[in-house]
Amino acid sequence: MTALRQLEALPRAESLRLLSTVSLGRVVFTHLALPAIRPVNHAVDGDQIIIRAYLGTALDAALGQRPDTVLAYEADLIDPDTHLGWSVIIVGRASHLSKPAEAARYRELLRPWVTGGRDDIIAIQADMVDGFRLVETTA
Amino acid sequence: MTALRQLEALPRAESLRLLSTVSLGRVVFTHLALPAIRPVNHAVDGDQIIIRAYLGTALDAALGQRPDTVLAYEADLIDPDTHLGWSVIIVGRASHLSKPAEAARYRELLRPWVTGGRDDIIAIQADMVDGFRLVETTA
Repeated sequence: MTALRQLEALPRAESLRLLSTVSLGRVVFTHLALPAIRPVNHAVDGDQIIIRAYLGTALDAALGQRPDTVLAYEADLIDPDTHLGWSVIIVGRASHLSKPAEAARYRELLRPWVTGGRDDIIAIQADMVDGFRLVETTA
Repeated sequence: MTALRQLEALPRAESLRLLSTVSLGRVVFTHLALPAIRPVNHAVDGDQIIIRAYLGTALDAALGQRPDTVLAYEADLIDPDTHLGWSVIIVGRASHLSKPAEAARYRELLRPWVTGGRDDIIAIQADMVDGFRLVETTA
């Protein structure tokens, strides 16, 4: 079934709310000068997207040394048949949550991606929020 | 339900086969020096991922002028509750399919993202294929 679809932009608050209704998304970064993407678990905490992931030593170093490393994050819920649904994209400055108490709190909230793997708690500021809904149209 | 999970790497052929079983994924690129991601429709044709998308004038220009622009592509099918499933990530050189006959063939195969929007047919070479399955483990 191919529905006729159109995009409807979503307000920031609604985009963040939708993001908080799912626990799985994809973090986007640059690794060895190439575009990279990895599925991860997330939680929304105010204006921050918190992810639990180990994104490799390159990003590790970048996040540690430069507080302005920019990551993108995407989550969606789109029907595989009708392709109707929503998608939210965040772009913002990212940082490791290195304070033990803070990291421990989010470790409780976020399940690990795999059992026993190394992971860090990373906060992405929702500097840019771009959400849309794919809705059916009759036109 | 939090299942104990582990990652199993998938062979290249199996990764491309899984990718061809879904029609929705996310293309990853760099836009104005920032990481960018956009959900799109895809088809797998041999060693190429074909997408129908308009990624903005910046990428447009890059794809037209430099045949070695590298894009990443990700698709997955992961259960929202158990978080078991698979994910496949492609990284490779991308190019516009500008020959009218070739583009027209893929336009038939791939539905547009939205009705009436401008889109291009872009081929991403599967230079690097990184697929994994998230499986339950008892350990």
